[in-house]
Amino acid sequence: MPIAEIISVGTELLFGEIVDSNAAFLARELAGRGVTLHRKSVLGDNLHRLKDAIHTALGRADLLLLGGGLGPTDDDLTREAIAAALQETPEVDPHLLATLRGLFESRGRAMPEINRKQAWLIPSAEALPNPVGTAPGWFVRTVWEGKDRLIVALPGPPREMHRMWREQVLPRLPLPGAALLHTTLHTQGIGESNVAELLGDLTRQANPSVATYARRTGVDVRVAASAPTEAQAQALLNPVREQVRAALKKWTWGEDDQTLPGAVQAALGSRTLGVIEAGSGGVLCTLLADQRGFLDAAVTQDHRRLITLGLTPVTLHDQGLYSEQAARELAAGAREHLGAQVGLAVVACTAGEGTGQTHAALDTGEGEARTFSLNWPGDAAQVRDRAAVWALGLALRGLRPGGWSA
Amino acid sequence: MPIAEIISVGTELLFGEIVDSNAAFLARELAGRGVTLHRKSVLGDNLHRLKDAIHTALGRADLLLLGGGLGPTDDDLTREAIAAALQETPEVDPHLLATLRGLFESRGRAMPEINRKQAWLIPSAEALPNPVGTAPGWFVRTVWEGKDRLIVALPGPPREMHRMWREQVLPRLPLPGAALLHTTLHTQGIGESNVAELLGDLTRQANPSVATYARRTGVDVRVAASAPTEAQAQALLNPVREQVRAALKKWTWGEDDQTLPGAVQAALGSRTLGVIEAGSGGVLCTLLADQRGFLDAAVTQDHRRLITLGLTPVTLHDQGLYSEQAARELAAGAREHLGAQVGLAVVACTAGEGTGQTHAALDTGEGEARTFSLNWPGDAAQVRDRAAVWALGLALRGLRPGGWSA
Repeated sequence: MPIAEIISVGTELLFGEIVDSNAAFLARELAGRGVTLHRKSVLGDNLHRLKDAIHTALGRADLLLLGGGLGPTDDDLTREAIAAALQETPEVDPHLLATLRGLFESRGRAMPEINRKQAWLIPSAEALPNPVGTAPGWFVRTVWEGKDRLIVALPGPPREMHRMWREQVLPRLPLPGAALLHTTLHTQGIGESNVAELLGDLTRQANPSVATYARRTGVDVRVAASAPTEAQAQALLNPVREQVRAALKKWTWGEDDQTLPGAVQAALGSRTLGVIEAGSGGVLCTLLADQRGFLDAAVTQDHRRLITLGLTPVTLHDQGLYSEQAARELAAGAREHLGAQVGLAVVACTAGEGTGQTHAALDTGEGEARTFSLNWPGDAAQVRDRAAVWALGLALRGLRPGGWSA
Repeated sequence: MPIAEIISVGTELLFGEIVDSNAAFLARELAGRGVTLHRKSVLGDNLHRLKDAIHTALGRADLLLLGGGLGPTDDDLTREAIAAALQETPEVDPHLLATLRGLFESRGRAMPEINRKQAWLIPSAEALPNPVGTAPGWFVRTVWEGKDRLIVALPGPPREMHRMWREQVLPRLPLPGAALLHTTLHTQGIGESNVAELLGDLTRQANPSVATYARRTGVDVRVAASAPTEAQAQALLNPVREQVRAALKKWTWGEDDQTLPGAVQAALGSRTLGVIEAGSGGVLCTLLADQRGFLDAAVTQDHRRLITLGLTPVTLHDQGLYSEQAARELAAGAREHLGAQVGLAVVACTAGEGTGQTHAALDTGEGEARTFSLNWPGDAAQVRDRAAVWALGLALRGLRPGGWSA
């Protein structure tokens, strides 16, 4: 198995004010692909120490992943450090420079001269295109003390890094021959320790492995098997995957690349959806923003405004805004006042004594509205996030003809 | 200034499923106390690699902080690695052992024999009591290559680690008299490379140091100075901070703990704010969710609905939704139809040819609406995020009596 090390670059990471989520992302990616990660390091923007760390890592690891330090300013030193470590001299690549200038021009700006170094290359480096930022990555193939080594330099912003990793780095990496097959089940409405209890001994075996992860949308369960051939891996994976699917059927809303908003859209079909958020602060809108059929939303906690959207004064007075009945009236209101075919409403209390009180309702115009209540304290951002995600879960249950497992 | 390194120990940290918050905590603690952190590393539970890393760190750093690996099981190897690195032999300390047994007895349990190693000490180590767990820490004073070195081993659970750090480690550390003072300026509307150009040579000096960071809300600039006394640090910091403030005055919206939504709320005073988002998908609402005065929002790209909110059909027909005039009409509509005193509208195209086209307008009811346009391609989530953040920037400019620098 090839051995990897990750070095994250940036003095700001040493102040402890930013969490190094890039290294965690890369660690997960490597863990799923038969590469053994031996070490993660964080270094400041210091050429000497960075060069030194690259030397040391090249002595130990087949693959060295560097994150950050590809910006245009003087304290972005990753390119310089790789060049120095390999004793190569960076030069401006005319093709990269033209691309970079074009990028700035498309934004109606002239390229500042300091950005020139983002067009640097060294002889052993190949440039990795960055479709969502200015810094191209480097894919460096070299030989160190007689051994083949790869150095990959990735930009620091997670969005740029993730995309470059998937689209540019993975296809170039000589990953081990073993076939690794895996399926991830997405659940909601059950806690991680309960999932673990249901799975019992399954989580204790190594191949296939069954692991649980607490995610924003609920608990994910990943079943993975590796074997010399794909057919052998498949034969290992299948029976265990079926066991896991059966055990978690009641809570599973999707698998692998499916997203909760995507599943809601699929279940919505050609119907339009109107949303009223009182307390979840637009988080539900943002989750739905990429979905067709999402028509219109009102985001407000203002009582007068909510009354114009369908909340009755008597409910407000007797049961309060954070009540199942209020959610029910607002789901109906989303249909009536926002002109949508399906109405989804969520009311969530994010401050004061009732913090965490959350109710959601789905009104499809057919029969009774379906509702869901949750009381789970947390800070305001947590409550908003949970309210939005669980409202989507409610929508999926109500819109799929056979419920979640359909 | 003494130099420190942090090593976090634990194979689970290399799977990327857990974020190493301990190292971030220690980094923050050191940054505030005049110790320079040069490196953070994460290593798995491997005796050989751990011993090796301790050797290397002792050659470079005055203070080595180790987190984790103090548990009772076979894969907890931090004590073994320190002992091996220093060529000392651990022995059970009778006093520690008695304390440990007492701890288990107080919980009504017999101490499992594997916990004996938590009572180990080496001659150069002093035990650090752990009032909230079973693993004592180690405070090791040694001499390496003729230099005084400190090694501190802390337990992995954050609750135990934080308390031991505060109560046991800090009082024992010979911290420098040095005072570190810093100010962070928050800017918007200017790119990192342009900020760097404006700051010129300032970013190249070491003390005070001036560093730029690209954040979600714009570019941050951190000015920091250290000196033996606070007065001296202040004397170093002040002139440079004034230079930086003057150079970036036009783009600076706040300093240090100020947030952009918080600054908007402060500028809003007692007025209410209504928001219409067409394309930014609720991101602006979420940014504002914790602010008083934020009254009501509509999040929609539906043309018919937008017309009921103030968009004129003629503008929609002639200039399209993603136009300055549309933003202007919707800002007025936010006042009129959402019943707010101040209207803020943003229109952002997140799909198709015009992706990135963004216009925002602020209508305070006094004089002409203030507008802002931006054309910066990206994926849908990026466009939404930038649109929302820049709309807040526009709001701040329009609501502060003297603009940003007021």
